[in-house]
Amino acid sequence: MSDHEWVQGLLREELRGRTAYGAPQLDVPVRLNTNENSYPLPDEVVRAVSRAITGEIADLNRYPDRDAVKLRADLAAYCGHGLTAEQLWAANGSNEIQQQLFQAFAGPGRVALGFGPAYSMHPLLAAGTATTWVDGGRGDDFGLTAEHAVAQVRRHRPALTLLCSPNNPTGTALDFSIIEAVLAETEGLVLIDEAYAEFRRPGTPSALELLDKHPRLVVSRTMSKAFAFAGARVGYLAAHPAIVEAVQLVRLPYHLSALTQAAARAALAHADVLLGTVEAIKAERDRIVSELRLGGWAVADSDANFVLFGRFDDQQAAWRTLLDQGVLVRDVGLPGWLRVTAGTHAETTAFLNAMKELQA
Amino acid sequence: MSDHEWVQGLLREELRGRTAYGAPQLDVPVRLNTNENSYPLPDEVVRAVSRAITGEIADLNRYPDRDAVKLRADLAAYCGHGLTAEQLWAANGSNEIQQQLFQAFAGPGRVALGFGPAYSMHPLLAAGTATTWVDGGRGDDFGLTAEHAVAQVRRHRPALTLLCSPNNPTGTALDFSIIEAVLAETEGLVLIDEAYAEFRRPGTPSALELLDKHPRLVVSRTMSKAFAFAGARVGYLAAHPAIVEAVQLVRLPYHLSALTQAAARAALAHADVLLGTVEAIKAERDRIVSELRLGGWAVADSDANFVLFGRFDDQQAAWRTLLDQGVLVRDVGLPGWLRVTAGTHAETTAFLNAMKELQA
Repeated sequence: MSDHEWVQGLLREELRGRTAYGAPQLDVPVRLNTNENSYPLPDEVVRAVSRAITGEIADLNRYPDRDAVKLRADLAAYCGHGLTAEQLWAANGSNEIQQQLFQAFAGPGRVALGFGPAYSMHPLLAAGTATTWVDGGRGDDFGLTAEHAVAQVRRHRPALTLLCSPNNPTGTALDFSIIEAVLAETEGLVLIDEAYAEFRRPGTPSALELLDKHPRLVVSRTMSKAFAFAGARVGYLAAHPAIVEAVQLVRLPYHLSALTQAAARAALAHADVLLGTVEAIKAERDRIVSELRLGGWAVADSDANFVLFGRFDDQQAAWRTLLDQGVLVRDVGLPGWLRVTAGTHAETTAFLNAMKELQA
Repeated sequence: MSDHEWVQGLLREELRGRTAYGAPQLDVPVRLNTNENSYPLPDEVVRAVSRAITGEIADLNRYPDRDAVKLRADLAAYCGHGLTAEQLWAANGSNEIQQQLFQAFAGPGRVALGFGPAYSMHPLLAAGTATTWVDGGRGDDFGLTAEHAVAQVRRHRPALTLLCSPNNPTGTALDFSIIEAVLAETEGLVLIDEAYAEFRRPGTPSALELLDKHPRLVVSRTMSKAFAFAGARVGYLAAHPAIVEAVQLVRLPYHLSALTQAAARAALAHADVLLGTVEAIKAERDRIVSELRLGGWAVADSDANFVLFGRFDDQQAAWRTLLDQGVLVRDVGLPGWLRVTAGTHAETTAFLNAMKELQA
């Protein structure tokens, strides 16, 4: 923006000199950099979504259901745990869900607390809503203990505490003991970002189980990953009905299009088919973890569709070496580490072969 | 929210006690309350949109084009005036467009200035972004003079000044002299909300013409009205490329779904067909204005797809009298006035017949 200094003077102070968020998009054979689901939608789901959407087109002259009631009911049924439509809320991706939480419950003069490295959008959502962002940090191994989390809450008194489970970019799910310790200490809202929840390892519970006991707990999810629906932009949250009502004070009216609502409902009606690919992806994820460990690499436990691995003397050079072989992974800015999405079997094989060019 | 006092304590102070935005939605034969386009999409457009969307579904596992480059190029071509893709930006409705402008250029510690009665979302966008909202007001006849607007700018030094042209709910377009006087006085951004621009009367120019001369001018538009696309949620802005770059600092990544981008492009490719209904609606709008005036009612000049009319001793009672005859109009909260959307010929006739129950 160097040509346009005058705009810097108009911009909010905290945005000046920044660059827009976004992973570099390169046209390479194997794209494993944005944690997309590598499986296209199966034909039967394509047909169902097409039918559902086409049924809406003639009526697009009318505003969509402002409250997305049918979609929320379907999401509640999918989530289970006795949840009802009034405990669900949907938006254009979990980014918008989370932005609405920042707008309603955080914002200027209030603190949001995260524990980095975590989802890189969280501090940007804070900046976009003029919320004071505090990064509580993690241990050297990217682990998070209840003691550390509670100490950070006590110190900063956040209006909103954000915990990712599984965490991004590390991939590991949180113990309930940490979530419950934070809830016991804070007087604010606690958001568990479960974008990758469907990929968790057997025996790992979802924070949805805790909602009954904790009215200040919010769980956000997305259809981008497990449902292979990143292009459709559907995120949602589950929480106490009063939290959902409060979010409606800041949601833009008619924020969720009739096309999005219809597409999401059709996909949810085929959850069993779509979640079949989740099992395939988890198998590839586990293959990456075990093969890299066999190769001598350090690898974080993963409950997600991606794996954090290292250590490299120079992760930028390693990123380039992989790219030279047609494999795009993500340099998330952690010195010594890279993140790879578990793709199809062929993509995963391409990645593992490319890794042979590097020395653990 | 009376059952949930605890949530009030968590909410931002400025949101406490508020209720969510939204026109009452009633299931009546003639709905002329939300300025929707009464014409369903023509069959040939339904088919084109269906084809375009269906082509995207299999690839929904991938994120959409974050920068919506093709859609922005199509919008630029539609807008004309030599505009290019880098001067256009699109989002989920002009509400999201305007929220992004508030986030980047207004926000806490800054003032946004509007001139009410105007679009009722503007002060809500201010509340949602913790911007100080100032209503500069209008004259008794809802008119706005350059002198008054400039005086308000001088007094409040807004970071963002919002002008609707045509104004909602009054329906009248702004003279360029007012826009240029405000631009000459302010050091901030000036947003012209042209949601209804396609309905303006012959000889009324669009502020798009002024963009070349004024880098701090932004024009926002929507496909909801003229394109009968309210359910698809597509809004956009035209501005200097540096403004578009700045908005990208606060836009949520991948905010606009692949389905929305494809649907909007298909509709734009059929602009000529869709804008045919605009002419029909303008004819009904003009019929409402002239017949109501013949009946002795006060009616604001309209460059939109709606008409503000009065005066009623009790507009709530008049609203109810119309509703009892199956015609839903909008009580925008202006004592003595109601707003009606110009619908199809049959809907407009139903409204005009229902008005015969009332005495000017």
